[in-house]
Amino acid sequence: MSQTTSTQIQLAARPQGWPTHDDFRTATVEYGDLRPGEVRVQNAYISVDPYMRGRMNDVKSYTPPFALGETMTGGAIGRVIESAAEQLPVGTLVQHDLGWRDIAQADASAFRAVPELPGVPLSVRLGILGMTGMTGYVGLTAVAGMREGDTVFVSGAAGAVGTAAGQIARLLGAKRVIGSAGSAEKVALLTEKYGYDAAFNYKDAPVREQLAEIAPEGIDVFFDNVGGDHLEAALDVMNDGGRIALCGAIAGYNTTEKPAGPDNMANIITRALTLRGFTLGRYVQLAPEFQEKMAAWFAAGEIAYDETIVDGIDHAVDAFLDMMRGANTGKMLVRIADLES
Amino acid sequence: MSQTTSTQIQLAARPQGWPTHDDFRTATVEYGDLRPGEVRVQNAYISVDPYMRGRMNDVKSYTPPFALGETMTGGAIGRVIESAAEQLPVGTLVQHDLGWRDIAQADASAFRAVPELPGVPLSVRLGILGMTGMTGYVGLTAVAGMREGDTVFVSGAAGAVGTAAGQIARLLGAKRVIGSAGSAEKVALLTEKYGYDAAFNYKDAPVREQLAEIAPEGIDVFFDNVGGDHLEAALDVMNDGGRIALCGAIAGYNTTEKPAGPDNMANIITRALTLRGFTLGRYVQLAPEFQEKMAAWFAAGEIAYDETIVDGIDHAVDAFLDMMRGANTGKMLVRIADLES
Repeated sequence: MSQTTSTQIQLAARPQGWPTHDDFRTATVEYGDLRPGEVRVQNAYISVDPYMRGRMNDVKSYTPPFALGETMTGGAIGRVIESAAEQLPVGTLVQHDLGWRDIAQADASAFRAVPELPGVPLSVRLGILGMTGMTGYVGLTAVAGMREGDTVFVSGAAGAVGTAAGQIARLLGAKRVIGSAGSAEKVALLTEKYGYDAAFNYKDAPVREQLAEIAPEGIDVFFDNVGGDHLEAALDVMNDGGRIALCGAIAGYNTTEKPAGPDNMANIITRALTLRGFTLGRYVQLAPEFQEKMAAWFAAGEIAYDETIVDGIDHAVDAFLDMMRGANTGKMLVRIADLES
Repeated sequence: MSQTTSTQIQLAARPQGWPTHDDFRTATVEYGDLRPGEVRVQNAYISVDPYMRGRMNDVKSYTPPFALGETMTGGAIGRVIESAAEQLPVGTLVQHDLGWRDIAQADASAFRAVPELPGVPLSVRLGILGMTGMTGYVGLTAVAGMREGDTVFVSGAAGAVGTAAGQIARLLGAKRVIGSAGSAEKVALLTEKYGYDAAFNYKDAPVREQLAEIAPEGIDVFFDNVGGDHLEAALDVMNDGGRIALCGAIAGYNTTEKPAGPDNMANIITRALTLRGFTLGRYVQLAPEFQEKMAAWFAAGEIAYDETIVDGIDHAVDAFLDMMRGANTGKMLVRIADLES
């Protein structure tokens, strides 16, 4: 019989401002025997993402908050190691939302069988080929209505979603792609590896000044992962009819005071701008379209990506905190086990 | 020969904060003889509207700013009194943008012949049947994508656009229509005359508190004429997938300091909201659809309206300043001459 003991990360306290290790605890959960219809899964990788910070708060949102004292959830990929469900035999590769643990056990309906893709590392299935890449694609297309010839600005461009969004914008025919990031190294990566036409370090000078200088012809589409000063700066330079996809607002995730909004909201009217917040859950119907395009781009070598991988469920909180601080480049993942086929 | 002397209101200085009479001057313009293709028009009514305040500033916008020292422009209705253009003979009823003057003279292409509508006062052609009503219609439909069963909130609901928007929302099948206004008398008008289901006086208590109380089931569509505290309050209570049409931000038009934006912009993401600024110029293709629907509603007695009419071009600035202060109920107009057929 396979391992029935699961090491899981639970939310011990709702963080006030920046989360710390004290807000989490590691629990050992003993799963019982499988009930009919259940499977047990060994996770290979689990994902840590900025949106999880929001779920640590007890506020109304598109997804319910993490329950206090319970194991958190999140994107994961693994293999079935024991099965009481015909449709998911032992060895099946599955993606699912029971992350933040090494072993997951639940009804088979909680897992989705996914094809083996020889030559594609499993980690990538959670990154550029998974929700991360799809977030970039959906934000640009369905949310912002990007068109060929648009000038596109991506904030937090060296993050997992940002590196995807910039490359997708280029592949979709953007005239110019501009990105912001938080270090000189990341800025260099944007232009040298990720195909950005121009990039700046938002810590060097006020974003408002830097963006106005780097985008003298204005911006048509803004893919925002940061909010705050980035959104305000973009509202200054958006072209008439411009569209803003609000994907994240990491600038405000860990503040305890309510952040002041942009001082130039009136531009939304005078320039007929559209701001649209989104979360991927509303766009699941676009998954086949995304997977087809991204698989083709990936196979053609058009897509670069970075991963920052931390080993072991015991370091999952470290990975999450590092990611929130921007210590990663590209997708931040926790490796639980080597399950490459 | 008809009158060739035109009394016109010019922008003498760009207002700092609230405009005053000193920012305007009255000029007497002597028009020469008509050139081929030109017509001379006696205005019946000219319109004063909130958006004109924006054009008094020297900033990039969807319409160029008013030129300093020049006669301002704006919606007007009048009759041709002298013509050197076959297509617009003397007596033709015309709508046009050469307001802020009693007599207008220009190439015929600057004027649009409109049908006589017996029983419909000319003033209404600039109001509920004109751009004002169309702004309400377009904002709810094309901009906010209002659907039957939506709960709709309109700020500045007793203004010209607000009274139109509330009634149109009801006629389009809103489940509930909520409005805000700046006096007890206006609030009473909203529910008693304009078919609002609920209304509140935004001067009575913080908008945030009043709106949360009056809209316990949240809001699906917000038609915003005010901005500032109204937008912030709405972002608190918008339902998932809610849509906001940003039509005006009168709260900020006369401030000299940059206003802080809403402190709850993050709700745009977590609730997947859409904010869209608009100006009517982008939706001219909807004019026939609007006119057909509104004419039918109007003929069926479904549409109530108010007008605040000031007499004489010499009082146009008074009318504009009163309107900016909210002294009007419904459409604010300046009557230049009695030209009813």
